[in-house]
Amino acid sequence: MNRNSTPSTGDDTGAPHALTRRRLLGTAGAAGAAGLALGAAGGAIGYAATRDEAPTTLTAVGSTEVMFHGKHQPGITTPLQARGHLIAFDLAPGAGRKEAAALMRRWSAVARRLMAGEPAEGAADGPGHDTGIALDAGPSSLTITFGFGYDFFARTGLTARRPPGLDPLPPFSSDHLDAGWSNGDLWVQIGADDALVAFHALRAIQREAASTATVRWQMNGFNRTPGATAKPMTARNLMGQVDGTGNPKPTDADFDRRIFVPGGQNAAYDWLTGGSYAVVRRIRMLLDDWEKLPVEQQERVIGRRKADGAPLSGGTETTPMDLDKVGPDGKLLIPENAHARISSPERNSGAAMLRRPFSYHDGISADGTPDAGLLFICWQADPLRGFVTVQRKLDRGDALSPFLRHEASGLFAVPGGAAAGEYVGQRLLES
Amino acid sequence: MNRNSTPSTGDDTGAPHALTRRRLLGTAGAAGAAGLALGAAGGAIGYAATRDEAPTTLTAVGSTEVMFHGKHQPGITTPLQARGHLIAFDLAPGAGRKEAAALMRRWSAVARRLMAGEPAEGAADGPGHDTGIALDAGPSSLTITFGFGYDFFARTGLTARRPPGLDPLPPFSSDHLDAGWSNGDLWVQIGADDALVAFHALRAIQREAASTATVRWQMNGFNRTPGATAKPMTARNLMGQVDGTGNPKPTDADFDRRIFVPGGQNAAYDWLTGGSYAVVRRIRMLLDDWEKLPVEQQERVIGRRKADGAPLSGGTETTPMDLDKVGPDGKLLIPENAHARISSPERNSGAAMLRRPFSYHDGISADGTPDAGLLFICWQADPLRGFVTVQRKLDRGDALSPFLRHEASGLFAVPGGAAAGEYVGQRLLES
Repeated sequence: MNRNSTPSTGDDTGAPHALTRRRLLGTAGAAGAAGLALGAAGGAIGYAATRDEAPTTLTAVGSTEVMFHGKHQPGITTPLQARGHLIAFDLAPGAGRKEAAALMRRWSAVARRLMAGEPAEGAADGPGHDTGIALDAGPSSLTITFGFGYDFFARTGLTARRPPGLDPLPPFSSDHLDAGWSNGDLWVQIGADDALVAFHALRAIQREAASTATVRWQMNGFNRTPGATAKPMTARNLMGQVDGTGNPKPTDADFDRRIFVPGGQNAAYDWLTGGSYAVVRRIRMLLDDWEKLPVEQQERVIGRRKADGAPLSGGTETTPMDLDKVGPDGKLLIPENAHARISSPERNSGAAMLRRPFSYHDGISADGTPDAGLLFICWQADPLRGFVTVQRKLDRGDALSPFLRHEASGLFAVPGGAAAGEYVGQRLLES
Repeated sequence: MNRNSTPSTGDDTGAPHALTRRRLLGTAGAAGAAGLALGAAGGAIGYAATRDEAPTTLTAVGSTEVMFHGKHQPGITTPLQARGHLIAFDLAPGAGRKEAAALMRRWSAVARRLMAGEPAEGAADGPGHDTGIALDAGPSSLTITFGFGYDFFARTGLTARRPPGLDPLPPFSSDHLDAGWSNGDLWVQIGADDALVAFHALRAIQREAASTATVRWQMNGFNRTPGATAKPMTARNLMGQVDGTGNPKPTDADFDRRIFVPGGQNAAYDWLTGGSYAVVRRIRMLLDDWEKLPVEQQERVIGRRKADGAPLSGGTETTPMDLDKVGPDGKLLIPENAHARISSPERNSGAAMLRRPFSYHDGISADGTPDAGLLFICWQADPLRGFVTVQRKLDRGDALSPFLRHEASGLFAVPGGAAAGEYVGQRLLES
């Protein structure tokens, strides 16, 4: 997906909401109240200016605020952000439903403040303590999203209210999973277009966990910086491939049905109404092997052209794939085992999920290969009809599989958005 | 330092040079040639537009090109970039001066192309092979900077031309250095305002190393995204502290003398004219400890106010410190062991270096603490009069020391910039 494929509808949480920037500089001077300006037209932003003649240079990159309250949590239909942190926690021994509720209340309060560009004012040790890392910056499209893992329900005495969608994922042959980097009682996704704003949020979330929850794992990711491309392009991954073309769009008639959990079903799971399931996979890319393939072979592995993401059956990126089209040699233009063919919704009973990943790069592994790939995150109303359906197909003959290694996996139930005055998960934890 | 403290002089390499963007989209459509536009005024960049009505959204973030050729290499006075990679190589067994020269020629060629926003066209396997990761994006202020370590000279038979400035740094009591993450024959610094552009360059540099040099270590870092702040602020580090206020500025009369190696001295080292020395330290911040300190104590450790970086002796960020000023209680306002006092040029015989760091965050350590801090990089004409002088002072009583751990160290001689038709280091390797 990209900044373009998820136009926001005004009433959804996750809708980018520019203009508001309540928190500004600790040093706010004359320029502080000047509102949004985009810098000198045609010139570099802020470059070559001296301090005394500094223009106001906050752009939409910094000023964009995403709403915390709403029908859905933010960070699901929000356009991809330049920087992301994923962090999973386990409840500490002795912490149960009451402590979990207090934690979700604290986390929701800090998320609301930070997303509005305000300091954290950590409840952990009274007001006034904020690390200061995000000072000077606008909200920078910060989103903070919370989810519950399978074991959370037993630990809080809520097993009867654990939805079947949280049942553990089946094993796949491409799995090389590290349990220590997988699952967890609680999951938090942080995204922002500024790395310091994102890190500030990560530290604030960790601080509020206090003695209630301990970190299980934590991962960092990134996407393109807004403004680096001339058009709002579909993202590229670290294989250089356009990635996310087939994503469902919020304007699709069946988008909500596929991505968000509907209400009015089993009352035990009603707390998940408006929520979604996140499947998180740390997918390592074997880039040394991949980059040895000539581009033409890479394109046959994917089934799309590298330059623009157009299907090998012709057209442009958004042209539907013609899965039956053959070339002059009588062979399928999109090979039988091409990744795009196998994962296409029309070959998977219409299964669809919203992929919203971050790339990751954690340096060089002990074996000298790059430790890089995709923090694959996908959203769906039902993991069995979304991720599991597609991954089962891919598992049986995707040409891309030899270049990927699934190293970690998580499945989380992500409650609907909090209404004003409410905290995320309150409908589960207090009813 | 910040985007503001290094206004570029037109004739310097490293000068940001907006507007040129030679490489654009593989998919360049109607919008492709439309030049620079800053998106809808007052709105978010590219948000809520549908693909068909997509505006041209390349901003200065993407379009800014830094010149490869020039008196100095780029990436020294270039404003801080949002993303950085540091990578060190050792020459492979059997590789000597000839192979090193060929490598520097290949690296310079690929650096020039990538910084202009062109594909890598790797010489390693003929033209046409590029990973494609940076497709769609502008040059995004990409810089690639090359340096030579101490052992490079023995391995290339050039010991007689190794300048004394490369003599190993003395040990410091704060050192907890990992030799495997330190030094190296060759050092490359990559910076860009887009993470995929930076990663693309990293992979291209690794590819061109081919069989001549093997990776010794590699680190990733980041800074603020341009446009995230309302003013071109001095950077903040992950302690939340304004960091870089005292940096020399290119407009200072003695800037060149302090930062760049002058010509006309010992002929054996004449190849380094216009070059500089980079000291690289991976400085871990003990954030769990630091964040427990009340802000007032943090400020006394640093000697500056957290909100705006002003010295505790009063004024604003750029007000000179009054090191003798006392408060009503008769005590020094800037404590005797404050970091800013001890590291101030006036207490170090005017020693000055240009600090140009990236923050780093590599997740959570085995002990549960954040593996985060500063990829400290400083530039000076003479390491003994720059980094070593200041670090010796800090080593004897800096109040900040208990919160820092130097985990890796490198010292590199960075040749002057390549003239047109020349490659970096040619004056050493071919004369």
